[in-house]
Amino acid sequence: MSSLSATPGSYSQPTPSPFSYSVASTRLSSRPSIHLSNLFLRSLSLVLSSVSAFLVAGTSNTKSNNNQKSSFYESPELLYCFIATMLVFVYSAYQLFKGVSDITYRGVLISDIVSDYSSFPLDQLAAYLLISSSSVAVTAIQQNELSTALRRATIVSVCMSFSAFVATAACAILSGYKLCTRIIW
Amino acid sequence: MSSLSATPGSYSQPTPSPFSYSVASTRLSSRPSIHLSNLFLRSLSLVLSSVSAFLVAGTSNTKSNNNQKSSFYESPELLYCFIATMLVFVYSAYQLFKGVSDITYRGVLISDIVSDYSSFPLDQLAAYLLISSSSVAVTAIQQNELSTALRRATIVSVCMSFSAFVATAACAILSGYKLCTRIIW
Repeated sequence: MSSLSATPGSYSQPTPSPFSYSVASTRLSSRPSIHLSNLFLRSLSLVLSSVSAFLVAGTSNTKSNNNQKSSFYESPELLYCFIATMLVFVYSAYQLFKGVSDITYRGVLISDIVSDYSSFPLDQLAAYLLISSSSVAVTAIQQNELSTALRRATIVSVCMSFSAFVATAACAILSGYKLCTRIIW
Repeated sequence: MSSLSATPGSYSQPTPSPFSYSVASTRLSSRPSIHLSNLFLRSLSLVLSSVSAFLVAGTSNTKSNNNQKSSFYESPELLYCFIATMLVFVYSAYQLFKGVSDITYRGVLISDIVSDYSSFPLDQLAAYLLISSSSVAVTAIQQNELSTALRRATIVSVCMSFSAFVATAACAILSGYKLCTRIIW
C-alpha cells in the first residue's frame, strides 16, 4: 500500500493550503527571519542617513578664509543631499517604530494592510531619492568649490548615503515580497 | 440543501489550486495583460532612452565660438548620462526581443526561469542608473558651462531619461511580481 492512500483517521487533517493561513497572524511566527532582517536594515538605514545628514550640517559652521563654500546651504547640491537624507531618516524612524510596535503590540497602532501597501512604494521612493542625492553630491565634490573641511565631510557623507541607499533598496525588496504575498494569497 | 454540498458528478472537478498550474505555461494565456503591459513599457523605455542618448550625442558636433563645452564627452556628467542611457537602451532591446520571442517561440530561445530571476535585479539596476544619471545631468545644466545648443539638447535629454526611468521602474515592479509568483507558487 502506498503512503499516498490516507487512512480515515488522518483525512480530517488535509494538506495545508496557502489560503488557510492568515498572512497577518502568521507573519511574526512563521517568518521571523524576514521581520528581523527588516528591522536590522531599517536601523542600519536610520543610522547611516542620520550620520550622513548631520555630518554635512555639523561641518558647515567652520569658516574658510577664501571664497569657497563653507556651509551646505550655499551649495544647492549639498542642500538637496541634506534634505533627501533627512527625509529618509524620518521615514526610517517611522518604519523602525512600526517594526518594534508590531512585536510589542501586534500591529495595534498601525494597520498591517495600510503598512504593506504603503511600504513598497515609499521604500522605492526613498531608495531613488538617496541614489539621486548621492550622485548629485559627488558632482559637488568634483567642482572644487567647497572648503577643505566641508569637502572631506561631503566625501564621508556620500559614502554613508550610498550605504543607506543599499540598505533601503534591500528593505524595498523585502517590502515588495511582503506585498506580493498579501496580493497573491 | 446548501450550494456547498457538491453532487457526486461535480466532485471529479475540484476547486483549482495554485499548485495545479504551471506558471510558465499559463503566463501568456491567463495573464496576457501583464505580458502586454511589460512589452509596452519595454518599448517605451527603449525609445525614450535611445532618443535621450542620441540627442546629446548628435548635438555634440555643433561648434561654439567661446570656451563653453560643445560636445558631451568634454563634460563628465553628460558622458555618464550618455553611457547610462546607452546601457539601458541595450538592456531594453534585449528584454523586448525576449518578450517578442516569448510570443512567437514560447520561450524556446531564453529560459523562463533564468529570465524571471535576472529581470528584477537588472530592472532595478537600470532604474537606479537612470535616476542617478538624470540627476547628474541636471547639475551639468545648472553649471552654465555648456554651449546653447548642447544645453537645450541636454534639457530635452534629461526629460526623456526621466521618463525612461519611470517606465523602467514600472517594469521592475512587474518583474518583481513575476518573480514573487515563481518563488511562492
